[in-house]
Amino acid sequence: MITVLSGGVGAARLLRALRAAPDAPATRAVVNVGDDLVLHGLTICPDLDTILYTLAGLNNDATGWGLTGETWRVMSELEALGGESWFRLGDRDLATHLYRSQRLADGATKTTVSAELARSLGVDVELLPVTDDPLSTVFETARGRLSFQEYFVRHHHDVVVSGVEVVGAPSARPSPAALSAIHDAERIVIAPSNPIISIDPILQVPGVADAVRRRRADVVAVSPIIDGVALKGPADRLLGELGHEVSCVGVADFYGDLVGTWVIDEADARYEAALRERGYRVRVTTTIMGRADHDAALAAAVLS
Amino acid sequence: MITVLSGGVGAARLLRALRAAPDAPATRAVVNVGDDLVLHGLTICPDLDTILYTLAGLNNDATGWGLTGETWRVMSELEALGGESWFRLGDRDLATHLYRSQRLADGATKTTVSAELARSLGVDVELLPVTDDPLSTVFETARGRLSFQEYFVRHHHDVVVSGVEVVGAPSARPSPAALSAIHDAERIVIAPSNPIISIDPILQVPGVADAVRRRRADVVAVSPIIDGVALKGPADRLLGELGHEVSCVGVADFYGDLVGTWVIDEADARYEAALRERGYRVRVTTTIMGRADHDAALAAAVLS
Repeated sequence: MITVLSGGVGAARLLRALRAAPDAPATRAVVNVGDDLVLHGLTICPDLDTILYTLAGLNNDATGWGLTGETWRVMSELEALGGESWFRLGDRDLATHLYRSQRLADGATKTTVSAELARSLGVDVELLPVTDDPLSTVFETARGRLSFQEYFVRHHHDVVVSGVEVVGAPSARPSPAALSAIHDAERIVIAPSNPIISIDPILQVPGVADAVRRRRADVVAVSPIIDGVALKGPADRLLGELGHEVSCVGVADFYGDLVGTWVIDEADARYEAALRERGYRVRVTTTIMGRADHDAALAAAVLS
Repeated sequence: MITVLSGGVGAARLLRALRAAPDAPATRAVVNVGDDLVLHGLTICPDLDTILYTLAGLNNDATGWGLTGETWRVMSELEALGGESWFRLGDRDLATHLYRSQRLADGATKTTVSAELARSLGVDVELLPVTDDPLSTVFETARGRLSFQEYFVRHHHDVVVSGVEVVGAPSARPSPAALSAIHDAERIVIAPSNPIISIDPILQVPGVADAVRRRRADVVAVSPIIDGVALKGPADRLLGELGHEVSCVGVADFYGDLVGTWVIDEADARYEAALRERGYRVRVTTTIMGRADHDAALAAAVLS
C-alpha cells in the first residue's frame, strides 16, 4: 500500500504510471484542495478532477486539462449571456461539478463525494482530499491579491508573485482518512507537483507535515524541477520569485526533513552529491512521464 | 403601463399576447419565486425563466418548458455519474442558471439578475421577482411534505394535496420595484396562472395583497379555469382538493376583493351572472392562447 501526496497533472501522471507498474500496490492519493473554488454556484476541485479523469482514461492529454470528447454548449451560451467564462467548463466536466455540488448540499463530505465519483468512473485509487474543510490558496502579486484560479487561469500565471497564503489552513482539520493513509502506508510518495501551490497546502493542514516527517525513512519525493525548469506550470518561476533555488536541490531544501529519498532526473545527475550531503538517499532516472518506458522506469524507481 | 402578476406558462403566454397587441403598453411582470430551487448548487427560477424564454422567442412550445434547440449533454453525463436527474436541465438552460448563481454569489439580487438576463435576451418586459428573499412553496401530500419541484416535476403533480405552505412568506420583504409596479400601473392584471401555487405565493408576501386591493378598480384577472378544467397543470385538481369550487367562480371567490374585473372564457358565459352578483365587472372572450387571433382577442379584453 502506497500513498501519494498529490497536486494535479504531475501527480495524476505519476499515479497512472504507478497503477500501470507490474504488481502495482494498492494506492491512495492525499490530494490538495487549496485550488478548489466555487464558481457559478458549483464547487470545483481541479486537482481531484484531474486525477479522476486521468486515471479513468478520460483526460485530454493534448490540453493537459479537461476531458476527451468534451463539448462546450453551456459555456458558449453563458458567454452569450455575458457571464464569466474565463474558467472553461466543458459540458462533460460540468456534470462532475453538478454531481459534487448537489452531494455537498446533501451533507456529504468531499471525501465521500470523491469516493463516489471514483467508483462511478471505475477509478481504483482512493482519492482522499487532505481536508474536508475549505482551503483557499491566494497569491500576493504585482496585480494585487489573486485567488488561485485568477492567478493560474485568468492571468496564465504570468504575474510576479511576492507571497502565497493558504487561507483556512491553520484551522483546517485533516481528514482522518488522509492521516491514516500517511500513517499506514508502506511508502509515501511526494508527487512531482508544484511544491509551493500543490504540495505545501497539503502540508500546511495541521498534523499532516508531522505525520509525513514521522515516516521520513519511507518518504520518496520526485523532483518537479528538471534541469532548472518545470515541465508544466509555474513551479520554477514561483520557486525563484519566492527566494528558493530553482533546482531539485532547491525543492529538497523546501521540503527539508520530510523526505528520505529523492528521485531526480538524469538531467540532474550533477545534483546527486549535494542531495546526498544533505542526508538524502538519491535515485537518478528519467522523470519525464507520458511514454510507457519512461513511466515504467519512474514507477520502478519510486516503488523499489 | 400595466403590471401582470405572473406565474409561469400561462403568464408567459399572456405577456406575449399583450406585447403583440397594437399600441402595447409598457409592461412589468411581478413574478412568483415560490417554486425557485437550488439544485446541484444552482439557483433555478422556473417562472422567471419560462417568461424570459417565452418573451425571447426561445421557449419550446412543444413541451411547454425549456428552450428551443436544447441539448442534453450535461444531464446525460450527470446520469452516468449517478447524479439526480429527475429535474431536467438542458445545456442551454444551464447557462442561465450558472449566470444567475454566479451573479447572486457576487451579491446581486434576483431583481438585478432578472434585468440583466432580460437585457441579454432582448426582452422588453420588466421582470420583477415579488421578493429578493427566499420563498419556498411546500405541499402537504399523501406522500409526505414535498418541495414544489418534487410535487410538480418528480411526482408529476399526481398526488393528493391537503395543504400548501409558502415557507418564508411571513418574513419576506416585497421588492420595492414590485410594489411600485403595483402602485403605479394604470392596470394590474392577474395572469391565468395557478391561483394557489403561482399567484397566492406572490400575494402572501407582506404588503402585496394590500397593494393590489387598493388598486381593485384597476385589477383585471383572467380565469385559469375554463369549463371546469385547467388548460395546463394542476390548478383544477388543487382547487378541488383544497375545498374550492373548480370554476371561474371558485377562483373569483379565492381572490375575493382583490379583483375588479374578471375575464372569463366563452365556455364559461353561464357564470357571468354569478360573478356580477359578487360585484365584479365581467368580460367574456376566448382565453385560450396560442393562436394569433385568440391572443389578440384576449389582449384586447384585458387592455380595453
